[in-house]
Amino acid sequence: MQPDLLPGHRAASVLHNLRLSSPLVHCMTNDVVQNFTANVLLAIGASPAMVIEAEEAAQFSPVADSLLINIGTLTAERSRAMLAAIHAANDSSTPWVLDPVAVGGLSFRTQFARDILSLRPAAIRGNASEILVLAGDAAGGRGVDSTSDSSSALPAALHLAQLTGAIVAVTGELDYVTDGVNSWAVAGGDILMTRVVGTGCALSAVVAACCSLSGSRLDNVAAACRFMKFAGRRAIAAGRGPGSFSPAFLDALYLLNEEALA
Amino acid sequence: MQPDLLPGHRAASVLHNLRLSSPLVHCMTNDVVQNFTANVLLAIGASPAMVIEAEEAAQFSPVADSLLINIGTLTAERSRAMLAAIHAANDSSTPWVLDPVAVGGLSFRTQFARDILSLRPAAIRGNASEILVLAGDAAGGRGVDSTSDSSSALPAALHLAQLTGAIVAVTGELDYVTDGVNSWAVAGGDILMTRVVGTGCALSAVVAACCSLSGSRLDNVAAACRFMKFAGRRAIAAGRGPGSFSPAFLDALYLLNEEALA
Amino acid sequence: MQPDLLPGHRAASVLHNLRLSSPLVHCMTNDVVQNFTANVLLAIGASPAMVIEAEEAAQFSPVADSLLINIGTLTAERSRAMLAAIHAANDSSTPWVLDPVAVGGLSFRTQFARDILSLRPAAIRGNASEILVLAGDAAGGRGVDSTSDSSSALPAALHLAQLTGAIVAVTGELDYVTDGVNSWAVAGGDILMTRVVGTGCALSAVVAACCSLSGSRLDNVAAACRFMKFAGRRAIAAGRGPGSFSPAFLDALYLLNEEALA
Repeated sequence: MQPDLLPGHRAASVLHNLRLSSPLVHCMTNDVVQNFTANVLLAIGASPAMVIEAEEAAQFSPVADSLLINIGTLTAERSRAMLAAIHAANDSSTPWVLDPVAVGGLSFRTQFARDILSLRPAAIRGNASEILVLAGDAAGGRGVDSTSDSSSALPAALHLAQLTGAIVAVTGELDYVTDGVNSWAVAGGDILMTRVVGTGCALSAVVAACCSLSGSRLDNVAAACRFMKFAGRRAIAAGRGPGSFSPAFLDALYLLNEEALA
Repeated sequence: MQPDLLPGHRAASVLHNLRLSSPLVHCMTNDVVQNFTANVLLAIGASPAMVIEAEEAAQFSPVADSLLINIGTLTAERSRAMLAAIHAANDSSTPWVLDPVAVGGLSFRTQFARDILSLRPAAIRGNASEILVLAGDAAGGRGVDSTSDSSSALPAALHLAQLTGAIVAVTGELDYVTDGVNSWAVAGGDILMTRVVGTGCALSAVVAACCSLSGSRLDNVAAACRFMKFAGRRAIAAGRGPGSFSPAFLDALYLLNEEALA
Repeated sequence: MQPDLLPGHRAASVLHNLRLSSPLVHCMTNDVVQNFTANVLLAIGASPAMVIEAEEAAQFSPVADSLLINIGTLTAERSRAMLAAIHAANDSSTPWVLDPVAVGGLSFRTQFARDILSLRPAAIRGNASEILVLAGDAAGGRGVDSTSDSSSALPAALHLAQLTGAIVAVTGELDYVTDGVNSWAVAGGDILMTRVVGTGCALSAVVAACCSLSGSRLDNVAAACRFMKFAGRRAIAAGRGPGSFSPAFLDALYLLNEEALA
């Protein structure tokens, strides 16, 4: 059964809460998207901080409102720092979010992602290939792009949510967000967004920001997806290609308001 | 007593020198702002080089015109390379500049920043929280953003300048730049610039570029602040949010001229 | 003797092949240009993946269509991962490309670049100073910028191509591309592109993408140079400085078509 679309008023309400609380997001993310991720969080009204040394990461995640773990350019040293941050986050009830970039064909990150699945992520955000791999249903995509569409991974997303207790978001042209029982769909993706690096990674950071908010975590994660799709549409309408997309996208996130979402 | 505003003709004269000498700035900076920092230096007419391996960093800082040390994503390995570069810089009279990002609550970087304060930085550029911590007057902000305004840190800046011999710039909506005796104020900050990652970090790189110039170092550092505020104003007038700010800001730095500053 | 300009119809034919095959490029590149490099590859129709941990890098380069090795921010750990990736690439006949950033004055990278020259790179892309150093004719530039113009390095490029079997591209206002016997020139460079960080590094990534294509590798590499110069011209015409250049450049790469090139 196809999930319903997230109602606009629910997204609007989450945006209201996000702007009120301006969550501090501890980002442990990949080398490629650091700057874009930080700018996306700032544009939408959250506050990013990239703290990566193991001792500092464990000090910082309890102070932050949420923690993002993105394994796109994982190394042995970073995996140790991420583990320290996750354990400290769990000890202080800071929610943490997993972005399992390119999990599947690459052994080191795949083992790491499987290991930390048991550490109670608040949410997992990936493309169809990544969610299929984590749910144990497939062997992975080619590189960082999905070889499947998001609807094909909806059963895997449900399974993964039940397995881990996380909200699972499988994103693509349509996004699906589920807690293992209830689900939302979010529409509005565009092929142009796959020609800009880091849109998925930055979405995971916004998911992390929204996981710190009160209210339904399922709604909060779905709303994060909705913010990005909505701003993406605006940016595509304003721009002429993937270069002009990025500035227009950040502007659109900054100018995003409850009325437009509702 | 409130310091006077830096006169426009002094800023213009520093810009003239900067464009003439096109200083080569050895940047050891954080992961998030590498690209923006390099582009800011190139736009204003300096030349960036990011050399990070310990042996190479010690070879390079004597060749460079100045060295930037930014601890935003410090690791143990990077701290060793930075120390090697600072010592080599001091041995060859290359001025070096400290940006003490998020110093205070995070132990590793705080200890490192305190340790290198005795190594004769030419300048220190931070927000109010960071300068208060370095001067020993406070315990730090929350994450990378300041929890105080810059005027509250002016006494700490004076104290820190006297303590270290560095020019100290405490920046925010208003910037204050002091050598411990004489001070300038620089106006023109805007809240939108806090919604773009790396504007402070990039300013520190421009401070490093200006520290290589002849003439009054106090004027040179204050002029660096003035360049960024002036270009920021232009960019805000031209743009529609934090996304369009960045391209417009780089264009404004590139088009900056002595007449407009004077 | 001055090489002929690459004919437009040859560049158009390479673009046709590039868009058809959408090569997956394994990028091991420097910290400063990761994001821009990925966006350039995506804009032109290739697919980037930055995989840097040694074990994963050796797993990934055989799966990728080509491998880029850029030594701009080389460290000991990265050099080990790069070696693992190069050997795995060679074992599986994945072509790999060397960008010898700032080779010459800095010992660690210079030794590394000399060492891997014997590992059969498919192509080498550098500025005049870098190519002169690798060919054994000079001691290097100052920082990352060339102190020579590209025509002065044409004999060195021929020599380096004969020495290594690689296609050698020496780039600047005019680019020269040679297999050691035959050569092409590519016109259209502009001084503004030297005020934007990473244009050369991103070109090397496009060279890597084109090295995976069938047909003459000499033509393929020269076409990569042509794409970047062509899009650069369009972006300069559309923009107002180095800030507006980058978005306009990515748009121009995305909109690049065979008719315009021919």
